[in-house]
Amino acid sequence: MRYGVLGTGEVGRTLGGRLVELGHEVTLGSRTKDNPVGQEWATAAAGRAHAGTFADAAAAAEVVVNAVSGRVALDALQDVGAEHLHDKVLVDVTNPLAFEGGHPRLDPVDRDSLGEQIQRAFPHARVVKTLNTVNCQVMVDPARVPGDHNLFLCGDDPAAKEQVRTLLGELGWPAGRVLDLGGIGAARALEMYLPLWLRLSRTFGHDDFNVEVRRAR
Amino acid sequence: MRYGVLGTGEVGRTLGGRLVELGHEVTLGSRTKDNPVGQEWATAAAGRAHAGTFADAAAAAEVVVNAVSGRVALDALQDVGAEHLHDKVLVDVTNPLAFEGGHPRLDPVDRDSLGEQIQRAFPHARVVKTLNTVNCQVMVDPARVPGDHNLFLCGDDPAAKEQVRTLLGELGWPAGRVLDLGGIGAARALEMYLPLWLRLSRTFGHDDFNVEVRRAR
Repeated sequence: MRYGVLGTGEVGRTLGGRLVELGHEVTLGSRTKDNPVGQEWATAAAGRAHAGTFADAAAAAEVVVNAVSGRVALDALQDVGAEHLHDKVLVDVTNPLAFEGGHPRLDPVDRDSLGEQIQRAFPHARVVKTLNTVNCQVMVDPARVPGDHNLFLCGDDPAAKEQVRTLLGELGWPAGRVLDLGGIGAARALEMYLPLWLRLSRTFGHDDFNVEVRRAR
Repeated sequence: MRYGVLGTGEVGRTLGGRLVELGHEVTLGSRTKDNPVGQEWATAAAGRAHAGTFADAAAAAEVVVNAVSGRVALDALQDVGAEHLHDKVLVDVTNPLAFEGGHPRLDPVDRDSLGEQIQRAFPHARVVKTLNTVNCQVMVDPARVPGDHNLFLCGDDPAAKEQVRTLLGELGWPAGRVLDLGGIGAARALEMYLPLWLRLSRTFGHDDFNVEVRRAR
């Protein structure tokens, strides 16, 4: 599969690197063509790894992974251009995290979500929100955390969600551990989990954790 | 111990009933003295169970449990009166859930929380937020859900949190499963978990579940 991964931060490099290891063709996209971080990543990952602009990454891809920071997510996708997202699966792993006077804030929150904003801005993209509830080491290596802990996904396109389940399976997340929470409106719930994740991270002194949903029936 | 439980809804009756079974003296408080639901509960629970106004419930109590619905929580506590909360542990199990056009909303959210509003409105109460992340059957019988699933608590008063840990232990939550997330500011994180809980509940078709935090270290 050909993936375009938007974002040369830790999340983009880690996800992109694992996708290359899995045998996929990956273009890591950044705001500028000559981003040294992207170039270095492509050189190190070698072979099926490329670097380019956001538009380069999406244009070459069958599936686009949005791994930029939440506050620039819509701008990055505008740089990509709707034509390079048309009918494509767009995996949105972002969190709309901002800081205000040192305190974490979500924007949007409660009445809207970044997942929904992206789907509205690019109605012909097939947005699936997932992976935003764990750190990027856990994303690509769930076995580092013990137990049958869960991921969540949501989106309006059932076929896109199935395709993302396959991707998650390759990353080490069996289908039974990926809970489908419904349409893209559920992105609010997934994003609003972030404050609890941040508090747990502060309490433990690390973010190598996840939650397992335990059911009475 | 003498408990005052505010609220004659399912949460108040269930928590109050279990506290009576555990040998505590419980007054279930409602807006009016002659609330038939409260009277019936006190008759059925018998012996150490009483019913009265919010103020009656708190006045008689060493520990007050705030189990009214979130949208009336501050009003109920105003009815109690600050003098009946002075220096008392106030266990806040509420969620600031409202509905707007059929959609769940939190009010306050992100920049504030109901837990913090209550602590600010009653600075001499020792507010501990906990139990708001599970349904009331799970609150009083965690063993109905398999696994070492977790509760969270937060509050500004360490001694109050220790006292609440003891209460939670009596309800079936060993200390090791109760994660202390810090000061009352963490109430934002606990309340913002609600949308995910609601989505999971809708997905499963029931709310007999909880999350277990799994850590790599």
